[in-house]
Amino acid sequence: MMADISRGRFITLEGGEGTGKSTLQHALAERLAANGIEVVETREPGGTPLAESVRELALHPPRSEAWSPMAEALLMNAARSDHLDKLIRPALAAGKWVICDRFADSTRVYQSVGAGVPMDFLKAMERSVLAQDVPDLTLVLDAPLDATAGRRKSRPGASDAFEVRPDDFHQAVRTGFIELVRTEPARCRLLDASRPADEVADAAWTELDRLLAARGQGA
Amino acid sequence: MMADISRGRFITLEGGEGTGKSTLQHALAERLAANGIEVVETREPGGTPLAESVRELALHPPRSEAWSPMAEALLMNAARSDHLDKLIRPALAAGKWVICDRFADSTRVYQSVGAGVPMDFLKAMERSVLAQDVPDLTLVLDAPLDATAGRRKSRPGASDAFEVRPDDFHQAVRTGFIELVRTEPARCRLLDASRPADEVADAAWTELDRLLAARGQGA
Repeated sequence: MMADISRGRFITLEGGEGTGKSTLQHALAERLAANGIEVVETREPGGTPLAESVRELALHPPRSEAWSPMAEALLMNAARSDHLDKLIRPALAAGKWVICDRFADSTRVYQSVGAGVPMDFLKAMERSVLAQDVPDLTLVLDAPLDATAGRRKSRPGASDAFEVRPDDFHQAVRTGFIELVRTEPARCRLLDASRPADEVADAAWTELDRLLAARGQGA
Repeated sequence: MMADISRGRFITLEGGEGTGKSTLQHALAERLAANGIEVVETREPGGTPLAESVRELALHPPRSEAWSPMAEALLMNAARSDHLDKLIRPALAAGKWVICDRFADSTRVYQSVGAGVPMDFLKAMERSVLAQDVPDLTLVLDAPLDATAGRRKSRPGASDAFEVRPDDFHQAVRTGFIELVRTEPARCRLLDASRPADEVADAAWTELDRLLAARGQGA
């Protein structure tokens, strides 16, 4: 079946805390816009009013209690379902390109780390929630922990349930994302995020070539 | 394998709006207490502080937006996961009996009604969230819609996302619960809830006989 060339393209940015996802998001959005492509920048968890309300509950649980990884995974998917229904799917159908800062792969990686949720269940949930709307391209930003520690810790408001976890958690997350790229090479690309931001953006732009070519419009 | 007789028993009450679940819950709790059994009365969605915060979000979505059945199903299971971890499992392990007003079967029925979530996915989610903690007994309260309409509509605060739905929704829910009892006869019992409350409680108490007998303590 040929791809529907009037449909927009769905790009997700993944990786650990402080790897520069939102900086890259804005850089790619600018370049796409300069190529005449209408772009929607969004993020997870969140992206719609209901999904943002779940984000708040997930990242800042009332009374400083903790969610289990299973509860977190379910909350993230509830937010994702609303985000897909009300923002991502309508944008793609209208021919817009969507760049999302974190998406389903973050749930796979973060909620399976350690004694977390079995990967089989995470993937089953993902299949049901995403249905046809798997990302066209997932860019995974990777950097050694010592390169991201400064950005993780100096960030304003860096006190949510994920950012404050210990280094071995962040190391397991990094390993999880590398494993993701290894197992899904057709969709995912690993980018060295320890380089300057403009070099990362150049490398990412190269990966967008095939999406732009399929649209009949070279970079 | 013999049942662990030191573990408490887990009883859930299910059925449509206005069928008298909470009245029955209190009646059964009193009778169990009179038999020397320590009882925990709880409800879903809710039952723990985090689960109650999800309940609020699910039943009263911000800005009067609507959750999709998929998002609702995920939220209900997130709340349930916390409820099981922090209240139900510890209570059962301590030998207490738990009576829960609504549980996993409500998600199966309410979120599959109409063009809702596929039952296969609802059951997969339920297996992952409940693990070993399937109810020992589920009492399903059933009554014709015209018998429950008064209770549905006159209830103080009867304005949540489920209670205000139209009659054909409530009819489909009723049918869904009857089907549940048909497919899981070992766990579920249908009770005619159109009778006076004390007759319903007598009938329910009879169903508890086998749980009490297994405990070596007749009613």
